[in-house]
Amino acid sequence: MRDAFHDDLDSIGQTLIDMGQRVGRSMELATTALLTADLHLAEQVISDDDYIDTMQHELDAKTLSLLARQQPVAGDLRTLVTSLRMSADIERMGDMGHHIAKIARMRYPEKAVPPELADTIQEMGNVAKRIIEKTTHVIETRDLQSAVELEVDDDEMDKLHRKLFVTLLDDAWPHGTETAIDMTLLGRYYERCADHAVSVARRVYFLVTGEYASEKEDSF
Amino acid sequence: MRDAFHDDLDSIGQTLIDMGQRVGRSMELATTALLTADLHLAEQVISDDDYIDTMQHELDAKTLSLLARQQPVAGDLRTLVTSLRMSADIERMGDMGHHIAKIARMRYPEKAVPPELADTIQEMGNVAKRIIEKTTHVIETRDLQSAVELEVDDDEMDKLHRKLFVTLLDDAWPHGTETAIDMTLLGRYYERCADHAVSVARRVYFLVTGEYASEKEDSF
Repeated sequence: MRDAFHDDLDSIGQTLIDMGQRVGRSMELATTALLTADLHLAEQVISDDDYIDTMQHELDAKTLSLLARQQPVAGDLRTLVTSLRMSADIERMGDMGHHIAKIARMRYPEKAVPPELADTIQEMGNVAKRIIEKTTHVIETRDLQSAVELEVDDDEMDKLHRKLFVTLLDDAWPHGTETAIDMTLLGRYYERCADHAVSVARRVYFLVTGEYASEKEDSF
Repeated sequence: MRDAFHDDLDSIGQTLIDMGQRVGRSMELATTALLTADLHLAEQVISDDDYIDTMQHELDAKTLSLLARQQPVAGDLRTLVTSLRMSADIERMGDMGHHIAKIARMRYPEKAVPPELADTIQEMGNVAKRIIEKTTHVIETRDLQSAVELEVDDDEMDKLHRKLFVTLLDDAWPHGTETAIDMTLLGRYYERCADHAVSVARRVYFLVTGEYASEKEDSF
């Protein structure tokens, strides 16, 4: 009986990894859809997010059922409770990709991002993808060094976010309010995605060490 | 022993209610601080949020300890797991008040909100306060009718959010990009606060009925 239970625990961990990989891919595709005005890709990201939501519902149902049936103690209990919280963060990271894809779709056939911000947004997309991949690696390996490194990547995201605002606030900004609104929301989506990924890594850190990694408030 | 356990469950419920009331008050003060450029109030909201964060940490530690020590089953288990999720939502609602207060502080001694948007922001603040109060009532009474009504209040928030964008996108918008960015973020904060409150009410609905209330994706 305990063996079947530990198989179930492993399968929950594997589903979290699968969700993380899927969200990382979605975020990459969302950035490409945004920067190239690719409607087909945007639609794909939006429907992939439904699938990620379903994965989360099924995973949570399974986790709750294990909690109820198996009455786990100590480390196993902590693993299950932490899984519920990680799945919520990962699902929310998927929502951010969805939101980005919706901006791409809303502005199609135009490109939502003006040329002078394309590099910054591409970098934010790259950092988001890297953070998600590292987070997924942290879930898989419980590598605390990578968990700590993620804070540095998150600082890079914050820097890019500030750079975005500096461009928007330049007196010479020629693209009007609509584009400023889009860029403000995009900046927030990438930044929140990174925040949730860091939150997942912190949960793994707590799971392994029983201590909280240092916390940092999100920058807005 | 079981009696002490149920006292603990009651006390967890009471802390969630206290957190909800505190967040409702913070959101009201944040809106006032924003619309009147009241630096003192803004600072108060920001430091209140630290207190709310501490309440959540302590509540979660208590909940996890009960899960580990008492091995609750069925309804009690569901109550504890749901409490963990509700506390996360309520803490996040507090963050939104904090973010709003930070915009008030950043623009002080100027008013962050231009006159033509003051009514819309005040209404968003009113709806947020009403939604938080109703959510707190739902936690306290498990009144499913109020839980369902919250979806209507949330629709009102979405309408106000759209109205905000219509004003921003008017060709005659005279306030420049910086104010447009502030208003975009403010709109998002109020809307996310309402989303989290609705999420709490849905969790109560699930706790009581074992079924999910209909879901609606957040509008951005």
